[in-house]
Amino acid sequence: MSSIVLAVGNGKTLFGGAGVAPDADLVRFVDPESPIINAFDLCALRGDGIFEATTVWKGFPVSLENHLKRLANSARLVDMPEPNIPALTRAVQLVIDQYDDPEPGPMLRIIVSRGLDPDTGVGKAADRTPTVYIFLDAKGTLHSLEPITMASMTRGYPSDITARAPWLLNGAKTLSYAFNCAVHRECARRGVGDAILFTEDGYTMECPNSSIVARYGDTFVTPDPRIGILNGTSQREMFAWALEEGKKAEYRKLPIAELREADSLYMTHGGWSIPISAIDGRALAVDAAEIQAINDAIHSGRTHEDALKIGPTGDYE
Amino acid sequence: MSSIVLAVGNGKTLFGGAGVAPDADLVRFVDPESPIINAFDLCALRGDGIFEATTVWKGFPVSLENHLKRLANSARLVDMPEPNIPALTRAVQLVIDQYDDPEPGPMLRIIVSRGLDPDTGVGKAADRTPTVYIFLDAKGTLHSLEPITMASMTRGYPSDITARAPWLLNGAKTLSYAFNCAVHRECARRGVGDAILFTEDGYTMECPNSSIVARYGDTFVTPDPRIGILNGTSQREMFAWALEEGKKAEYRKLPIAELREADSLYMTHGGWSIPISAIDGRALAVDAAEIQAINDAIHSGRTHEDALKIGPTGDYE
Repeated sequence: MSSIVLAVGNGKTLFGGAGVAPDADLVRFVDPESPIINAFDLCALRGDGIFEATTVWKGFPVSLENHLKRLANSARLVDMPEPNIPALTRAVQLVIDQYDDPEPGPMLRIIVSRGLDPDTGVGKAADRTPTVYIFLDAKGTLHSLEPITMASMTRGYPSDITARAPWLLNGAKTLSYAFNCAVHRECARRGVGDAILFTEDGYTMECPNSSIVARYGDTFVTPDPRIGILNGTSQREMFAWALEEGKKAEYRKLPIAELREADSLYMTHGGWSIPISAIDGRALAVDAAEIQAINDAIHSGRTHEDALKIGPTGDYE
Repeated sequence: MSSIVLAVGNGKTLFGGAGVAPDADLVRFVDPESPIINAFDLCALRGDGIFEATTVWKGFPVSLENHLKRLANSARLVDMPEPNIPALTRAVQLVIDQYDDPEPGPMLRIIVSRGLDPDTGVGKAADRTPTVYIFLDAKGTLHSLEPITMASMTRGYPSDITARAPWLLNGAKTLSYAFNCAVHRECARRGVGDAILFTEDGYTMECPNSSIVARYGDTFVTPDPRIGILNGTSQREMFAWALEEGKKAEYRKLPIAELREADSLYMTHGGWSIPISAIDGRALAVDAAEIQAINDAIHSGRTHEDALKIGPTGDYE
C-alpha cells in the first residue's frame, strides 16, 4: 500500500490472449525508485509506444473504457498487438487496490512500449512482447480548476493530411511527446498556461495534452478528431454533461478565428474540464459554478455511460 | 570486455561543468541485460531527450566531433543543458576501450534523456540532471552496402515552417522517433527499403534516419538543413570525399521532382554512404567501386578533417 503505486505489466497476458489471466500473471508491483526499463527498450530509444492517462477519483478510474478503447486504436495505428481490454481493466483495478493515500484524485498512467529493439544485440532474440507498466501517483502534479490563459500556435500540418499520410500517426497517442513538451516550454516563454494548435489552413486542433471545447450560447463545439487529433475522453464526458443538461454538443471543423470568438473555452484532459480565462490576449468569462458542476458530474461517474456513446458522426468534410 | 558494451553516464559531469572529470566520474559499466531506466524518466514517458549514433570502425568513432556538435545543437533546440564535449569524447573512448569483438564496425549510440519527470512524485525532488547512456553493439543490425530501393512520402510540413514554428523541433535529433519508425513500417508495406520525405510544397527533406545525396554529373547535392532536417554527419563526410576528388558539392532547396531525375542517389547515415537502386520505381545505376571508395575514405578517417568545415552557406531562400 502506498502513495505511488508502480506495477510492471505482463505484456503477454495484457496484449493478446483471450480471457483474463490470474491476478499474479497480470502485474507485479515494484519499488517506484528502482530502474525497470532496459536500455534497449524502444520506449527509451525511440519513443516507440503508446499510453493513456486519467484521474482515479476516490477509487473510480474516470473514462477507463474510453481510454482503453483509445489505447486499442493507438495500437492499431502504430501496428502494435491488440490490447486485451478485460485483462487491462483488471490490471488497473489491482493497481488501484494498492493505493492508500488520502489524496482523492491521483493520476493513473498506462505505458506500453513496443518492447526491446530488434535491431540491437540485446533485443534481437526477444519475442516482440510489449513492455507494459502502470502507475498511480498522488505525489506528482495534480489537476487544479484555476483558470488558465492560452496562446494559439501552428501545428504545421494542413487539415487534410491525416487521411493522406497515416505514417504521421496523427490521432495515435504515442510516447513521442518531445514536440508536445516543446510547446509547453514555448508557453512558459510567452507567459501563458497552455497552447491550442491549429492547422496551416487555420482550423483548430488540440492542446499538447488536452482537448478543447468552445461554447457558443447553449452549444458546445469541439474539433472533429478526423482532422488528426486525439478523440478526447474528458471532452466526451463534458459533452455527456452538456446533453444531460439539455444543451447542444457538436463535432466539426472549427476555424481558429471562430475559436477566438467563443463565449467560453474549456481545456479537457485526464478526467477534468479546466476553464480558459484568455486566448491570444482576449479575456474570457469563467463561470466557476458551471466548472464545478461539470467536474462533479465527471468524477461522480454520472456522465460515464453517456460518454461511451458520444463521437463524431457522418463524413469528414 | 565484450561485444555489447553498455555504460551509464554521469549526467552531472557530461552535461555542464568545465574540464573533464576523472574516468570513474564519467561512466560506469553495467550489464546490458539489466534494467537501468526509471519508470518516471522522460525518455520512457515522453521520448523527451536527444541522441546521436555512428559506427566505430576499427576503433575509430566516425564523425564523432560533428556528432557531438549536433548533439549540442539538439540540446539547445530542446532547452536541455549544454553537453561537455571533451567529457563526452572521453566517455566514448572509455566505451570503445571495453570492446573486444572481432566485428570491425559496431554501432555506437549516445542517449540523453531530460531526466526524471518533475511532474511525477518520484521525479519531483530530482535536480534536472540528464540521464545519459552510451552503448557499443556488435550484435545488432549492422550496415550493409547492398543497394536499396526508396519511395517518396510527404512529411506534411511546408518548406518555410522551421523558422516560423521552432516548437516543432525540426532539425533536433530527439528520442521521439515514433513517426520515423512508422515510415519504415510503411516502407515494408510498400516493399521498398527506405523512404525519402518531402515538404507539402514539393521539396526534398531527409530519410527517417538518414540524409540523402543526389549526383548530377560531377555535382553532389543535398537539401539545405534549414528546411527543417538534420545536418547530416555522414553526408558531410561524403561531401568531403567529393571535394577531395575534384568534384562539386552543394546545399540547396531540391525539388523532389528533380531528386527523382538524379544520375545517382545515396543514403547516408551512421558513417556510411549506401547506394539507392530505385526511387519511386525508377531504376538507378549503382557504381559499386565508387561506393566502396566513398566508404573507405570515410572509415579510414581520410575525410574527417575536411568534413568538419563543410556546411550550408548564405541565407536560406
